[in-house]
Order: sequence, then structure tokens, then C-alpha cells
Amino acid sequence: MSKTKTKQKVSAHYTEKRKSSSNPSENNPSKKSKAPALVQKSNDKKADKIVVSSAKKPPKNKVEKTSKKNTRKTAPLKIIPLGGLDEIGKNLTLYEYEEDIIIVDCGMTFPDEEMLGVDIVIPDFTYIANNAHKIRGIILTHGHEDHIGGLPYLLKIMQIPVYGTNLTLGLVKGKLKEHGIAGSAKLNEIKPGDKIDLGVFKVEFIHVNHSIPDSCGLAIKTPVGTVVQTGDFKIDSTPIDGDVIDIARFSELGKKGVVALLMDSTNATRPGFSLSERKVGESLSNIFKNAGKKRIIVATFSSNIHRVQQIIDEAHKTGRKVVIQGRSMLNVVNIASELGYLNVPEGIIVDIDLLKNYTDESIVIITTGSQGEAMSALHRMAFSDHKKITVTPNDLIIISATPIPGNEKTVISVVNELTKLGAEVVYEKMYEVHASGHACQEELKLMLAMTKPKFFMPVHGERVHLQKNAELGISMGIPKENIIISTIGKVIELRPNDVNIKEEVPSGKLLVDGLGVGDVGNIVLRDRKNLAESGMIVVALTIDTVSYEMVSEPEILSRGFVYVKENEELMINARNVAVDAIQTALDRGTVDINALKSVLKDSLSSYIYKKTRRNPMIMPIIMEI
Amino acid sequence: MSKTKTKQKVSAHYTEKRKSSSNPSENNPSKKSKAPALVQKSNDKKADKIVVSSAKKPPKNKVEKTSKKNTRKTAPLKIIPLGGLDEIGKNLTLYEYEEDIIIVDCGMTFPDEEMLGVDIVIPDFTYIANNAHKIRGIILTHGHEDHIGGLPYLLKIMQIPVYGTNLTLGLVKGKLKEHGIAGSAKLNEIKPGDKIDLGVFKVEFIHVNHSIPDSCGLAIKTPVGTVVQTGDFKIDSTPIDGDVIDIARFSELGKKGVVALLMDSTNATRPGFSLSERKVGESLSNIFKNAGKKRIIVATFSSNIHRVQQIIDEAHKTGRKVVIQGRSMLNVVNIASELGYLNVPEGIIVDIDLLKNYTDESIVIITTGSQGEAMSALHRMAFSDHKKITVTPNDLIIISATPIPGNEKTVISVVNELTKLGAEVVYEKMYEVHASGHACQEELKLMLAMTKPKFFMPVHGERVHLQKNAELGISMGIPKENIIISTIGKVIELRPNDVNIKEEVPSGKLLVDGLGVGDVGNIVLRDRKNLAESGMIVVALTIDTVSYEMVSEPEILSRGFVYVKENEELMINARNVAVDAIQTALDRGTVDINALKSVLKDSLSSYIYKKTRRNPMIMPIIMEI
Repeated sequence: MSKTKTKQKVSAHYTEKRKSSSNPSENNPSKKSKAPALVQKSNDKKADKIVVSSAKKPPKNKVEKTSKKNTRKTAPLKIIPLGGLDEIGKNLTLYEYEEDIIIVDCGMTFPDEEMLGVDIVIPDFTYIANNAHKIRGIILTHGHEDHIGGLPYLLKIMQIPVYGTNLTLGLVKGKLKEHGIAGSAKLNEIKPGDKIDLGVFKVEFIHVNHSIPDSCGLAIKTPVGTVVQTGDFKIDSTPIDGDVIDIARFSELGKKGVVALLMDSTNATRPGFSLSERKVGESLSNIFKNAGKKRIIVATFSSNIHRVQQIIDEAHKTGRKVVIQGRSMLNVVNIASELGYLNVPEGIIVDIDLLKNYTDESIVIITTGSQGEAMSALHRMAFSDHKKITVTPNDLIIISATPIPGNEKTVISVVNELTKLGAEVVYEKMYEVHASGHACQEELKLMLAMTKPKFFMPVHGERVHLQKNAELGISMGIPKENIIISTIGKVIELRPNDVNIKEEVPSGKLLVDGLGVGDVGNIVLRDRKNLAESGMIVVALTIDTVSYEMVSEPEILSRGFVYVKENEELMINARNVAVDAIQTALDRGTVDINALKSVLKDSLSSYIYKKTRRNPMIMPIIMEI
Repeated sequence: MSKTKTKQKVSAHYTEKRKSSSNPSENNPSKKSKAPALVQKSNDKKADKIVVSSAKKPPKNKVEKTSKKNTRKTAPLKIIPLGGLDEIGKNLTLYEYEEDIIIVDCGMTFPDEEMLGVDIVIPDFTYIANNAHKIRGIILTHGHEDHIGGLPYLLKIMQIPVYGTNLTLGLVKGKLKEHGIAGSAKLNEIKPGDKIDLGVFKVEFIHVNHSIPDSCGLAIKTPVGTVVQTGDFKIDSTPIDGDVIDIARFSELGKKGVVALLMDSTNATRPGFSLSERKVGESLSNIFKNAGKKRIIVATFSSNIHRVQQIIDEAHKTGRKVVIQGRSMLNVVNIASELGYLNVPEGIIVDIDLLKNYTDESIVIITTGSQGEAMSALHRMAFSDHKKITVTPNDLIIISATPIPGNEKTVISVVNELTKLGAEVVYEKMYEVHASGHACQEELKLMLAMTKPKFFMPVHGERVHLQKNAELGISMGIPKENIIISTIGKVIELRPNDVNIKEEVPSGKLLVDGLGVGDVGNIVLRDRKNLAESGMIVVALTIDTVSYEMVSEPEILSRGFVYVKENEELMINARNVAVDAIQTALDRGTVDINALKSVLKDSLSSYIYKKTRRNPMIMPIIMEI
């Protein structure tokens, strides 16, 4: 509960910070020093020139820095994860060295089942807000929600220059527009191979394979040595865009010496290698070939642009037109096409309204809803609630995704409904219609072998994933004491030869509900849970504060408790119980309003529980006149 | 919504029926004709003698029957599933032939996510209640909740003789005791191989393998031919109790002619054969051997008595004592030991309070919680909330189960917490620490091959399972038109050479919440959902009905909306909005209370939505004096 309060105070705190940082000389790079000039567009991956940091440090800091220069060798690098440990989601890692901080990723996550009514969850930004003057920039590894979804909320608090690849920034721009802050953000485009300087840090972007194009790992040169953070990655020898993860660069870094590796743990419990994205293409190709006269509907993640590309390619090969369905699918396909990440043959895309002009066999529909999400296009098709698409026995539906843990039931319910409509549904793993974007055990071991880190910190996973990843590290010869399984908020102090976890900074979950950020905490959630379980009863009456008599018939109202019309007797009796209890209390001379409210509440709850074994929330209201 | 009303009216209806059926001559077998004498205890599986039905038919029925005798050949057998289709749970199937009905199983299921606050879900008994005079008995195939969990609720409505094996009835007795109706129930024990007559039906019990001992399939001899209902089954060539499913009897029935087969579909989407329970024993044996000095904790389903037996056996072999944990585990172990289904070496069970007297290496704890259930013993251990067991790095924890769809997230959260405590957790499928109790595709095909049914009806599954099972039937040569995929409530009319689905009877979900059965319907659930999403605001004021003036300051209260202390301004402004709106309305001469309430509600909701983008439920109360 106290934690909630802390969280809720944060927003007030942010507001102050925002005001103070509105001084452009403090945190905002001037227009002159904007992105393009600051980023080294490198074709030569070995180039290692230092470029000027985008964020001008205030003079005060500069002075401090000089004075501390002599202690630099003994000062530790602080690695502070504010998200992404013990969870898959809301990734955010700080690197702090004396007066400089860089932020890697700023993601969101979806609410747990208990977080009733909450829209999304973002990291607690308190520590960032408290250290605003040190922040040199935010590095984005790729454009997935769990890496960029929290960014608009952070940028509303303070201006920080953002660095990311073309597609990543394209997706970020869309988000910022929705939040009405697209104009003010300082977005700096980088390419894999680029190196940028941010304070004492030099950050190099390294191409990796993942389920979204333009994904990068990072080599962060720090005063204590080079830290490699893989970002989300897999090793795909036959990726769709032709570029295998930059094995040469990771190996070279390993040779030169990597002091610490922070590595993706998502698939650490899975043995072997992940499936190549191209293999999915082969499966799709077979299915398309055998589809005959059927219409094909493929549901997948909108951000999986390589998958979408493969579906479009298969459509093209088999002479089908493509209809795009679902808000986020339309959005991502637009952005990816504009930026050149999607190769769409001319005339292949058909507007949904023209669907009726085509035969089933000449159409492929690419849609959202691969997770069974309630409002998604596929869900609406399944429950016959889609205005423009009616599923029939002549549909072949491919769910090209695996359910994210927690979504299994919704996905299967969508499959059930589609099956009831007579459609053929392909969704099992056995058909190889989906490939994970995260490295499995053998790939993780390869990354360890390439980078040869002194210290190893599994990140991006629940505890079981972190633990398994750590065990892989041990199996690769990393001493147990050099492996760090940490939790968010803990400050990992890294020196060339040792690691310590000492302090802790504020961290946790900031709940976003509508426009509110952080105003829903444990008390509100507990009330929502109680209301959801048994509903509520309001009993209201008016008392004359002179005569201490009831001057109105008490009114009793319930919601979510029982179907009132069929339980009138219960409600009438409940009201009588309330009247009797109050009358008795008044007769005994009780005049304190809070005492009278307690009488109302206690008498009603015990009566209701006796009759129903339920505990609706009871709210007594006593009006005084 | 209209469906809800129907459901809610049912309980009133039942009450009438209960009254009418209290005439003992109508439905209750007299003491003389009680169970043991009526059931043929057969050792000779080929014996086929007809025994007298336990339920004496009232004379009226008898007359009717005779008069209809000539039409018997043309009358159809009606198969009416009231549960178990398009769901895994609340299995209940009626067989009706003219004036006789038998019920097979009476299960419950767990509420969906949307059924907020609901404890369990049972079938709609309306059709049974409406046909009480025809009911000859309830046959239970085995003792799992999805086959017996609804029984107490049905027996509260009417007296029906119950038939089941020793263990099944043992578990039923426990349930009836909890519901306070153990004394009145007519429980008749049968053994596999037994045949009983119930009206025109002759029911034969056939031994099958499943994840609970004493499970039976059924051969139901009816005037239109023999119907085989497999019940839940698998084909285990090396079961723990030594008895392979009665292949000979199923084959013999197939030879003689089976008009219809109703077969378990749970695992119809899984290729191959299910794992033998004995294989799980081997895996456990290996893990126990390599456990060294660690304490072992095994979580499994309490009803999986063969699993519990194997764990006890391994404990015995490795010289460990056994502690039993969790209410249902203690309950089932007691019943199974008493009835001789569990062979517990003397002195091996140790009371939890004596745990401290033993070293870790000499203990195995068998516990509930394999599904991560919130109040289970394993969950409490994981969240350090168990009063008597503290998990340490010296614990080896085996989750000997796979998550039921929907439970994946809770199971993994338990595994995460146990891992955080340093314990080693074995839970993946790869270790073969669990075997399903349901037949996979090859086993289903074998059952089809043995019974050679004319008509085939997949049951016990969601639509995808039913569909896959149907496809297996087609692959085995059953004509498509002889395969019935139905839904609950539909009446399947079967004659020797044709099948029709014509009428529909009331069916659905009866929600149990506390003591209430059926008093929570769609309206209540919708309110609970709204309350859970955004909470509620009550605004109350008192109006003088003579002067039409507000005579009290309006009171505004919220729950589950925002943390009020930190949002005082919002709440004060909201109250002012309400006051202004009411004052304006009163000034304009509005005196109708409902109109004033609308004014309050509308003004508040639009203000709140504008400020927060949330839609709390708004309840206006206007007291009149």
C-alpha cells in the first residue's frame, strides 16, 4: 500500500521536473546540434570515431566531472534495470557513470489479471525524473511495444533525445502523434554499424535477427569496459531480409574483451535452435498451394513485417489479391511500405470494400487477432461480428503465431468459433506456421561463445527464464559468482573485476487507466476486485440532526449483486434490517454519524452473508438536514 | 438476456417440482427395492441377464407404455446432451426412450473469466425437472469433478438413484456430506462388468483406463440398439492397477453391433498415443534417485490416485517419509486408503507438525496446487505464505501435471516464485512427469475400430476437439452423414438406420455464487464487469418535495475509481458539477425524480469521462422529504 502511494506521488514530482527542464539550455539539444550531424553514418563497421554528444551538459555538471576525473578508474558503472526482469515486458535499463546516464529501451506491458480496468503498465520513472540532468539519451533496440510502448509517457515528463533505426522511429512517430507530442520529440535516426557518443558512453548499434526488421544489439563502451546488450535477438541463417545477425562484430567484440553481457532470456527454457523465418515461408507456401478454391485468411502480429512480406509474396505467386484488416495491421503495413521495409507488388492490395468483386480463390486476407484479442478483426470474424467479412466453410484460416502465455484460452475460443462456422483452421505448432523471434538455448550459447563476457546478466524474462539462461552461462564456463540475476530497481555496480549490488532505487509498475497515469493503485484495485466478486449495495437515509429521527425512507440500491427483480424479498428484508438497526441505535442515543454508518454496514453485511454467503461492498450514506 | 431470465426462473420451477416429487410412489424407489439387490454383481463379463429396474414406474406410465408397445420399433431413442459439448466440463447426457430417461454423469465446470465472482457452473436442469417422472437413475462413469460436481445440486431438486463404482461413490458421499444431503441420497454401488436395468435401458459398466481409478465406459442397450459411451478413457497397456481397458468387451460389442458411439474428444487434436502412467513412474524414479540430500515436493491432482501411489512407492523405495498437504489431497488420500485404492506402507505417512523432526533427504511432500491455484498449498509455499513449510534451495519440486488451458500463467508464476526461493523446479513436458488421462488420436482410432459404430458422436470437448474426433471417424470409414457434431440442448433422435436433430430443450449454464444457484445472470455479470473496469460513484442528495429545494449538501462517494485522497480536486469539482446541474434543473421547474436522477447521472458521467477517459458506474440517489 505504501508502494502505491509512492507511485502516485511520482506524477506530481514529474510535473515539477517537467517545469524545471523546460529550460532549453539544460536538457534539450539546440536545433543546431540536431540528429543527423551527431550520428556517425558508418559503412565501415570498424570505424571508431568519437562524435559529439547530442545532449549538452550544463556547466555545473562539467565542473563536477573534471573534479572527479581522477577517481574515474575506481568509480563503478551502474547498471539499473527499471523493467524487464521477472517479467516479459516494459524493458528499460539505465547505464549510469558518474554524471552521465543513458537509457536503453522504454517499453510497456499488459496488465495482469488482477489489474482490473488498467489499460497498460509502464515502468516507474521516478529515478529518471530525479536524475533528469544526467540523462544523455534513450537508445531503442527495436520497435516492439515492450521496448517502445512506454516512451510517450516518459517524453511527456521530460525531453530526451531518442536514437533508433528508421523503422523503429517510424513506429515511435505514430505513437507520439497519438499522444499529441510528435512535434517536440528529438528523434535521431541511426543505422546498424553506427556509433554515437552520449556523455562518457559510446554506443554502437549491431544488426541482429528478430521478429521485426531493423533490430539492433548494442555494444556500449564505458569507462569500465565494453558492455554488450543483445536486445531481443535470434540467430537466423536464412532471414527474409538477407542479413544474418552480425556474428563478425559480436566475435570481434569478444576478442577485444567484453566486461559484461546482458542477454535476452525469453526462450532460455527451450532447447535447440529457433525456427528460421524462411521455414515459415515454406510452410505457408505449401498451405497456399493446397488451398484450392478456398479463400485464405492469415492472422499474425502486425509488427512481424517479414511474415507479412512472406504472405504477400505467396499471394503474388499464387495470383491472389491481398486485403489488409485490423487497425494496427493497416498502420504497420503503411509505415513499413512507406519506409521501404515491405515490398508490395503494385495493385496487389485491394480495399476491403471491393472484396465482393473477387472470388474466394483470388483473395488472401491478412489480419490482426492472432492472440484472440477481444476487439481484433479475427475475433470479430469468429463471432460473426465483422461488418465486411463473413467466414464460411470455404475459408482456410491460418493463425501464424503462438499464444503469448495467458492468451491460450482466448485463442482457442476464436479457433472454436471459426470451426463452428465451418472454416478450416490451421493453428498448431506442428505446421510450422510460426517462428519465434527469440534465441533458443543453442543460440544463446553461441552468443556467449562469441562475446566471451567476464560478467553475465540474463535479462528480458521471468525468473525461470533468467535462471535457465544463467545455467547456460555456467555450462559455458562462466563462474557462478560472475553471473547476476537481479531484480528491477537494484543498482548493479560494475568494475572491471568485480560486481556488487548495493543500493536500490524506486522502481515498479505505473498503471495507466484512461488519462490517468499512476492514479490507480492497490486500494483502487482491491476495491475493483471486491466489486467484481460480489457487486455492491448502497443504503442511503436522511436524518434530522435536531430530533435525531429518520426523515426519509431509507433507499437501498444494488449493482452486480443479485438480479433484483427476482430477489425483491431479499432486498426488502435487507432494508428492514437496516431500518431496525438504525432505529435501535437512535433509540439508544447514538448520534455520531460514523457510528451510525457502522451500524448500517455491519447489520447489512451480516444479514446478506447469512442469506447468500456473499460479501458485496456495502456503502452506507447518511444525509443530515 | 432472455436466456438469463429463463435460467433464473428455473429455480422457482424446481421448487414446485421438488414438492410434487415428494410423493414417494412417484420417483423414489421404496426401501425394499434398494441398490444391492438390484445390481447384478457379475464376474462373468458375458452374462447378460436382465435385472429389475431400481425405479418403479408409476402405474400411469406403465399403461402408456403398453399402449405404445406397437410403435416401439418406430420410436426414436433421444440422446440429449445438457453439457460437455463445446466445453470441457459439466458433462451430462440424457438417454430418453418414450417414458424412460437415464442420466449419464452430472458434472460441473469452472467459471470463465467473464463470470466474475461465480464459484462454479453447473448444467441447466430444467428439462430434467420437467421430466422428473421419467428419470430412472443417474449413472456415473468416474469420480472427476466434471462428471460428479453438479450432482449435489441435482439431488437437492429431486431424489434420483445414483449408480457408480466404489471409489466414485466414495467421492460423491464426501460431496453430499458437505451439502448436508448425504442421508437422503440413494447410492448404488456397481462394479465394472455389472449390468443394471433402468426402465427400457440395460446399462453395462466396462472397465477403462483413466487418470482416476474405477473409471467405466458404458454399453447402453436400448430399443434401437446398443449405444457405447466411452466416458473419459485412454488405452494404457501398463496401467498401475494392472487392468488394461476391457478391449475384449468393446470388441465383442462391436461384433454384435453398436448403433452409436459417444467418444471422449479431449485429446483428439494430439497425434499418437498417450503416455503410460507407468512411464511417469519411471521418470519420478529417476528424479528421486538423483535427488541426493534434497527434500522432494511433488504437486499433482489429488484425484490421480495412481500418481499418488507411484510417489508413495518411490518414497518407500528411497527410504523417505511422506507428508500429505492440501485439503483435497488429504481428503482423497483418506477416502482412497479407506476403500483400498491406495496401498500405503505402515508408518510412511508423517504428520506435517512432525516435519521438523526429519532431515530434508528423508521427506517427500505430496501437495495440491499443480494448477497454481491461488489458495492451494503449493501456491502458499511459493509465496512464502505457508505456515508449516518453508521452501529453501535444498528443495526439489516436481509439478506432476500440465496446466489446464487458462492456468498457464498462474502455474508459471508459481514456478517463478519457487525459483526465486532457490528451489529446483521440474515442470516441463520433456521430463515426462505427467501423463494425460485421455486417449490421443491412435487410441481413439482403436476405439472406433473395436466398436465399429454405425453412428458416431464425438463428445467431451470444445468444438476443435469434436471436429478433429469427427475427422478421425471419417478416416476410419464412417460416412460423414453418420457423424453427429451437436450442441447442448439439441435432441438427437436415433433410429437403427437414421439420425435426426429436431427439437431443442432448455440448456445452458447455471451459475453458482455462494448459496445462490441461478440468481446471477447476464445483467448482474455485466454490472460486475463495469464495476471491475472503472469502479463506481454514488452521488446522493435530499430534496424537499414541497419547495423543491436541495435540503442537504450532496454527498459524493467513489470506490474503485481513483485514489480519492490524491484526487480531491477532481471529486470536489465533480460534486460542484452535480450541484449546478441539479440546481439548473430545479430552477427550470423539473420536479420528476427520475428526470433529476438522469440529470445527475449525465452531467457527472460526461464530466468524469472528459477528465479521466473512464466510465465509472454512476448511481444517483435522490431522497425526498
